[in-house]
Amino acid sequence: MAMPKGPQAFPRDEYLRRLSAVKLEMKRRETDVLVVTSPSNITYLTGYTAKSGYVPQGLVVSLKEDEPTFLTRRMDAPAALHQMFMDTGRVIGYSENLVGHPEMDGFDVIIDFLHEHNCARGGLGLEAKSLASQTVEKFKSKMPEAKMVDFSNAITWIRLVKSDLEISVMKEAAAITDAGMLRAKEVIRPGLRESDAAAEIIATLVRGANGKAGTGLSGFYLCASPRSATAHIPWSEDVFRNGSQINLEFGGQRHGYVSALMRTFSIGKSSDRLRRIHEAEVAGLEAALGAAKPGATCGDVAAAFNSTFKKRGFIKESRCGYPIGIDWLESTASLKEGDHTVLQPNMTFHLMLGNWVDEDFGYVISETFRVTHTGAQAFSNLPRQLFEL
Amino acid sequence: MAMPKGPQAFPRDEYLRRLSAVKLEMKRRETDVLVVTSPSNITYLTGYTAKSGYVPQGLVVSLKEDEPTFLTRRMDAPAALHQMFMDTGRVIGYSENLVGHPEMDGFDVIIDFLHEHNCARGGLGLEAKSLASQTVEKFKSKMPEAKMVDFSNAITWIRLVKSDLEISVMKEAAAITDAGMLRAKEVIRPGLRESDAAAEIIATLVRGANGKAGTGLSGFYLCASPRSATAHIPWSEDVFRNGSQINLEFGGQRHGYVSALMRTFSIGKSSDRLRRIHEAEVAGLEAALGAAKPGATCGDVAAAFNSTFKKRGFIKESRCGYPIGIDWLESTASLKEGDHTVLQPNMTFHLMLGNWVDEDFGYVISETFRVTHTGAQAFSNLPRQLFEL
Repeated sequence: MAMPKGPQAFPRDEYLRRLSAVKLEMKRRETDVLVVTSPSNITYLTGYTAKSGYVPQGLVVSLKEDEPTFLTRRMDAPAALHQMFMDTGRVIGYSENLVGHPEMDGFDVIIDFLHEHNCARGGLGLEAKSLASQTVEKFKSKMPEAKMVDFSNAITWIRLVKSDLEISVMKEAAAITDAGMLRAKEVIRPGLRESDAAAEIIATLVRGANGKAGTGLSGFYLCASPRSATAHIPWSEDVFRNGSQINLEFGGQRHGYVSALMRTFSIGKSSDRLRRIHEAEVAGLEAALGAAKPGATCGDVAAAFNSTFKKRGFIKESRCGYPIGIDWLESTASLKEGDHTVLQPNMTFHLMLGNWVDEDFGYVISETFRVTHTGAQAFSNLPRQLFEL
Repeated sequence: MAMPKGPQAFPRDEYLRRLSAVKLEMKRRETDVLVVTSPSNITYLTGYTAKSGYVPQGLVVSLKEDEPTFLTRRMDAPAALHQMFMDTGRVIGYSENLVGHPEMDGFDVIIDFLHEHNCARGGLGLEAKSLASQTVEKFKSKMPEAKMVDFSNAITWIRLVKSDLEISVMKEAAAITDAGMLRAKEVIRPGLRESDAAAEIIATLVRGANGKAGTGLSGFYLCASPRSATAHIPWSEDVFRNGSQINLEFGGQRHGYVSALMRTFSIGKSSDRLRRIHEAEVAGLEAALGAAKPGATCGDVAAAFNSTFKKRGFIKESRCGYPIGIDWLESTASLKEGDHTVLQPNMTFHLMLGNWVDEDFGYVISETFRVTHTGAQAFSNLPRQLFEL
């Protein structure tokens, strides 16, 4: 019996539209065939979210064909058949013998495929930045007549502007994120281990919200006293105490798309220092959202935050955020002064205002928002509060 | 106030012993200084498990110094100070301005550091396979007098033989894995969504076992009918039904170390087809564990499984497993016929006997084990059962 197609997150037309945008960029760069290897970009172009990217795999996009072809190890082909929008023949499983092989790997199969399909002479796009240098060398040496074109981040730039369908999915993810943050508010109390709180919050992120399950887990960070100055520790085995401060950052996920959120919690009344930075951050956050609209730049949004924040006596060293979508961070623009990327409707950003001030003090707040036709819309419905428990 | 050191997973001596082994390999390869960039290798050499590896970072190991130096973005320096065994001065936070910078990144800072410390002329080790080709080019062009030595997987090979302390930690992880599998047995029932079962199991993996919390999450796969032929789908929004088959693969984590396990579940009486393959797999698994002992090769273990399995009329295409330790897979040897790696005491493997037979049928069972002085010891205490619920 053949593997049945799973429920698709997006209609076929949506994928063909995304592929058209990629093909336009291929034409602009004189690229006949493109090998997409970044897992997030493969998700974007096909709907595939299975976690097979730790061995070689590639989605071959050709100007000559409507649908792309995915080459993956044999054990992952059924998941690709199940999740990807394409026809059955568009998924090719290569021999398991190549996994753990001393001299060859799946990229040799992809190169053979390109030779067999007369793609060995034209412009060949590779996402070189996410490929090992040996892999790039392999393509060069086994395809000497192809002209390599670096497509690093090129698809990620296309992903920057979301469709209305993507926005809907990100809003579903945001509802899950909010549910997780509310669960944190319920469970965090003195004497509880950080890990036990993390278990409850993560379970909520998996169960989902409004009848829609979380479809995966992305970054999860619970950095509590005396670690409030740290940014990327998942959690510890320590217990919460009276007076503990807890910085939370996580995002619910739908079909690979994430809506991230940060909030700071305090067990008992928060310190003056914490309240002062919170008030300055919220003022800055609102100024930044106020500055976000079509025609403004990413730098304008950061400048609005920074000037408001500075007036209140604070400085944030790290950038104010970045585009967000499939599996969190899109490595393209930055909400950072001097970034001239012009905002367009349906661009989505994580306005990330985490501020790790001293070795013993940090504070976090953030919003995931989209640019609308007139301004900005945050996806979370949570208050911009310093939660005192 | 300075960031306090957190509780260390291993004593200082253990890290110095690991570093000595790396330095021996450096001498063998005429490498004066090594830039470690693989997050698992950084965990191995320092105890650091925070998730900052999505931006450039590097652990500089020099033959001239006892302790290595870690260069990371400023916001991640406090977590490094907290988690790493080294002295405070051994963690250097680079400017946040380099994150999202169009022309420079953290590797420029690492290269400057190497120049300042007179490391620009000798042998320079890079883990090229886990670096973007542009990064390797940057090192070459900015350090023209250094002699590049490829250290890809070199530390991972050193990790293959665990210390007794590492074995203890992996056993703690295995107890968490078992708790997760028992939780699956409790919660899976007809009508429950896969995501709701996943939430319960994952929460158990985070809470931990025997008073020891899970310290992170690694791969988690719940592939149920009609997706039993898939290997790497985390879970779906589908509900379990009478007759559903559920293939589970996950691993509890302690201090970054994972002990993985696979078991197959059936709601109601399992089919003849499922029972037959289960019996053949268990026989093969036991033959494989029987063949694992010092002096035997990885290939011998695979051959023992394959011949037993074949006698019962089955074939497994994919390899029979791989070394496991920090964050699951170690990309070195394979439990695969023809792999001549000789087993030594305290090597640890995931004997991964997942078998995705047809597009509509797969079966999974596995054990994480260590090689002892006389044979093999599985870490899990669970029966090798086809769990009928």
